[in-house]
Amino acid sequence: MNPTACILVIGNEILSGRTQDMNVQYIARRLAEIGISLMEVRVIPDIRETIVTTVCDVRARFDHVFTTGGIGPTHDDITAPCIAEAFGVPWTIHSESFRLLEAHFPPGEFNAARQRMATLPEGAIPIRNPVSVAPGFSMGNVHVMAGVPRIMRAMFEEVSPGLTHGTPVTSISWYALGLYEGTLAAGLSDVQSCHGQVDIGSYPFHRPDGRRGVALVSKGVDARAVHQAASAVRDLIATLGFAPVEGEPPP
Amino acid sequence: MNPTACILVIGNEILSGRTQDMNVQYIARRLAEIGISLMEVRVIPDIRETIVTTVCDVRARFDHVFTTGGIGPTHDDITAPCIAEAFGVPWTIHSESFRLLEAHFPPGEFNAARQRMATLPEGAIPIRNPVSVAPGFSMGNVHVMAGVPRIMRAMFEEVSPGLTHGTPVTSISWYALGLYEGTLAAGLSDVQSCHGQVDIGSYPFHRPDGRRGVALVSKGVDARAVHQAASAVRDLIATLGFAPVEGEPPP
Repeated sequence: MNPTACILVIGNEILSGRTQDMNVQYIARRLAEIGISLMEVRVIPDIRETIVTTVCDVRARFDHVFTTGGIGPTHDDITAPCIAEAFGVPWTIHSESFRLLEAHFPPGEFNAARQRMATLPEGAIPIRNPVSVAPGFSMGNVHVMAGVPRIMRAMFEEVSPGLTHGTPVTSISWYALGLYEGTLAAGLSDVQSCHGQVDIGSYPFHRPDGRRGVALVSKGVDARAVHQAASAVRDLIATLGFAPVEGEPPP
Repeated sequence: MNPTACILVIGNEILSGRTQDMNVQYIARRLAEIGISLMEVRVIPDIRETIVTTVCDVRARFDHVFTTGGIGPTHDDITAPCIAEAFGVPWTIHSESFRLLEAHFPPGEFNAARQRMATLPEGAIPIRNPVSVAPGFSMGNVHVMAGVPRIMRAMFEEVSPGLTHGTPVTSISWYALGLYEGTLAAGLSDVQSCHGQVDIGSYPFHRPDGRRGVALVSKGVDARAVHQAASAVRDLIATLGFAPVEGEPPP
């Protein structure tokens, strides 16, 4: 069994609809590539009790928790002290991060607000931020990252090599134009029954230019089983009289 | 207090990173407009126990639950029977929906798979689908919608007028180019302290062409209080020597 993961998106701006999340898909893809199973994503508001309670809940249920958002210098950036509270440890200056940030800002500009970004839960291991210096951190199995996508990605690539990996997910997609789900459902159900180790997903598409069809995605950690299931999916499409095309449908 | 809501995104395709969710932002914006507070979003896999347990949990904690995904005709579309299980009712043919779908398909094509789309939890109220006929449904406070964005939006607009509304959220954004969060954090914290009814969020931006700055968003259900907080935000930007611009920063 691969290790499991949960993403916590901490941010009122997602819940208000102001911002389109651009982090979940990146993390989800990368986790599949390194063999960690993403089991849940939660978006929660910048409310202390909610963050603390949710972190306590999910860190007990999943092998890894990745958080995004709330680690900047302003009053609404409360992720770090909440993680400290969830782990029952003080939230204190991390001297190495303090020195890095102090050196980064011009004299006189490393003010109290910016010093908050060098304040971590006691015992946290900083995650290097090659973009703007202010670190993320890992506290136990909770990996705390920035919300800005460019910084989040850099932090994920810093922290992920050190995580316990599993078997990468193999994923094979076949699609067919003009084929509808209702036509293939019975046959696809049989294919799924014969390939129980593989997740077969059926995703209809309907493009603005009128092209319609369905993509059938086989995925799992047993590459051989995934290839066998995908072959059966391809054969099903052909049997129904449609032309199977490997890959994801064009946008 | 406005009614509260949770969105459940049911779909392996989001957790695998295959698909970028395009529904949460739409629902979030519309809920803010009609005065329902979105408190949580969860993305969960197409696993029966997980769906049933999560629905039971969130329908007790929030006034409204909106689900997206899993109501098509294929084997991986298990949302409807899971909702029935969560409510302890049978999953049975809904005769009005059956007749609508039967009339929609050419003779002989309304097969068993498509009949599943007319099978609803007993007591559910169908949500009309003006795009492709197969309905969503409301079961108690749980509103079950399609995952395909165009269909989801149509269903949301069908169901939302009948929901208990609250006071719409007023949101006012001011931004400034060249201003960084660390510079304004102390002043902004004071503004937030003086306007406790208003949520003030600070969102840095950094465009590919190099334009940087910060957007400060004041929002809440007391329109007068939001306008006062936003004025204080504008004054803070000016006091710091930057040019406040109303609205969201250009893309």
